[in-house]
Amino acid sequence: MKPCKEEEEAVAAQAASGDGSSSGADPWKECAEVAVQLALRAGQQQFLKEVYKLLEWDIGVILSLKRTGIKREIIKKALTEEKCVSTKTSAADLVTETDHLVEDLIISELRKKFPSHRFIAEESTAAGEKCVLTDSPTWIIDPIDGTCNFVHRFPTVAVSIGFAVNQELEFGVIYHCTEERLYTGRRGQGAFCNEQRLRVSRETDLSKALVLTEIGPKRDPDTLKLFFSNMERLLHAKAHGVRVIGSSTLALCHLASGAADAYYQFGLHCWDLAAATVIIREAGGIVIDTSGGPLDLMSCRVVAAGTREMAMLIAQALQTINYGRDDEK
Amino acid sequence: MKPCKEEEEAVAAQAASGDGSSSGADPWKECAEVAVQLALRAGQQQFLKEVYKLLEWDIGVILSLKRTGIKREIIKKALTEEKCVSTKTSAADLVTETDHLVEDLIISELRKKFPSHRFIAEESTAAGEKCVLTDSPTWIIDPIDGTCNFVHRFPTVAVSIGFAVNQELEFGVIYHCTEERLYTGRRGQGAFCNEQRLRVSRETDLSKALVLTEIGPKRDPDTLKLFFSNMERLLHAKAHGVRVIGSSTLALCHLASGAADAYYQFGLHCWDLAAATVIIREAGGIVIDTSGGPLDLMSCRVVAAGTREMAMLIAQALQTINYGRDDEK
Repeated sequence: MKPCKEEEEAVAAQAASGDGSSSGADPWKECAEVAVQLALRAGQQQFLKEVYKLLEWDIGVILSLKRTGIKREIIKKALTEEKCVSTKTSAADLVTETDHLVEDLIISELRKKFPSHRFIAEESTAAGEKCVLTDSPTWIIDPIDGTCNFVHRFPTVAVSIGFAVNQELEFGVIYHCTEERLYTGRRGQGAFCNEQRLRVSRETDLSKALVLTEIGPKRDPDTLKLFFSNMERLLHAKAHGVRVIGSSTLALCHLASGAADAYYQFGLHCWDLAAATVIIREAGGIVIDTSGGPLDLMSCRVVAAGTREMAMLIAQALQTINYGRDDEK
Repeated sequence: MKPCKEEEEAVAAQAASGDGSSSGADPWKECAEVAVQLALRAGQQQFLKEVYKLLEWDIGVILSLKRTGIKREIIKKALTEEKCVSTKTSAADLVTETDHLVEDLIISELRKKFPSHRFIAEESTAAGEKCVLTDSPTWIIDPIDGTCNFVHRFPTVAVSIGFAVNQELEFGVIYHCTEERLYTGRRGQGAFCNEQRLRVSRETDLSKALVLTEIGPKRDPDTLKLFFSNMERLLHAKAHGVRVIGSSTLALCHLASGAADAYYQFGLHCWDLAAATVIIREAGGIVIDTSGGPLDLMSCRVVAAGTREMAMLIAQALQTINYGRDDEK
């Protein structure tokens, strides 16, 4: 997609004004640093982790949070919704509220610092904003990846912040809140978990592979049939095992760290994928379309692997599940 | 099963001799304490975690382990098998070696302290020892639960040590090595993760449940068909999600902590289940047979849930997959 004139001007103006790209040698350094701070802040300090703790309704924790000055509105929100959580009668609503809260924090902070940048984010898109990737500097954000896990307090939940310029992914930051693992990747500069360099598995043989996937949001009989059929094909090909952990983003981080050999999914979104794609590529891995062709961030489908051979074996084994496109919704 | 005379005498003699049961008020206190020490030692200090690190072939780590005096044979074994791991040509063999190593350590230490006790353990059983639960004090051990994860360095691996007397489970200790979480449960004394009390979910509605399961070792078409059919039934019943994390023991720990509402599996073994059963019951949960009847530790099948209502809903939804019995193999 070609950028419109206005966008081209925005990029040029920004480069001149120092809006996140003042250093010619490392134009997006400030953005990447802000992303890390925000992911940690969102995930660890004021938001996810505290709300997560609050979900257990430990009054001691709540009081200590009050003492340490956690933002009042978060406590208030969490406390108001205590009944919803403890009964789980409207758990999905609570998550939506928390999702919004975290997303709003991240975007409002970024808008202050980088007023000309664009944003694609899960809750804004759900609320009707267009999900189109232009050439403008664009933040692609999932405030809480692993929503269902979050509702259930299953400790596999992450904040994901990706950043693209000229439709090319520049960096990704993913924070696994409950395990306190910060995954980062910058184009051309490697990928890390906390301070440890990430490297993908070099496995090329499907019969020795650990494969990750997610069920996806559609649960109608035809979709489930295809989902199970795909998993069955991989197990028939004697893959060591298939894991379903409930967070696309964190599954992709396991792939980046070499703890699994392949990942595939139909029905994920660009905000599940953007940050992780940079991290996997910088760890030496491959991220492609389920057809075997180049990745299309908006196509709601992906195969990722440590090696191209493995990615192609997985792609060839899969039947397509049609989830439409993020930019046509 | 009735104890034979010899076993009854052994229990009586032991009670008199102080072999792990000297305190009348808390007869198995020493055993439970030793179990914790061994699980930590096996998982954290000398064994699993170090071997786990070694699998990444970081020479710095290997050297530091040598300096800190990790048992020489572990390093030697791991180093000798470097090629196996790095190529993954015989990953299963390596795991078997490591399994044996850790199991032998645990059992040899326990035999020294409690010479009259019996042992049921994964590798000993695989090597041909009988897997029969008598009334004697019996340790039920899985040295590495999550074997496939272990091979792939997927960080969901645990040591599991359960203990039964008169065929009743007295305590369980599970150590999640990579996340450093120690789960413990003693009959009548509650269940804990590190120092935090565990409590199961009180959910009774399947349409609001997060359900955990494992694929099981058999991968023939008929078994896989039943496995997928069971998962499909739960998703049709609108369960929020199904997770497959690759460790029965740790999935059961998530259930005990309230992070999931139900767990079921066909094809697990008594050593996957023994320690976790005590922990779940002490966290307020239910562990039953997939028929809906009482748990049979040797039957290779289980349903566990936070509430009896949830356990029965799961049991009613399942088709049986026949894996035989642990005590008839």
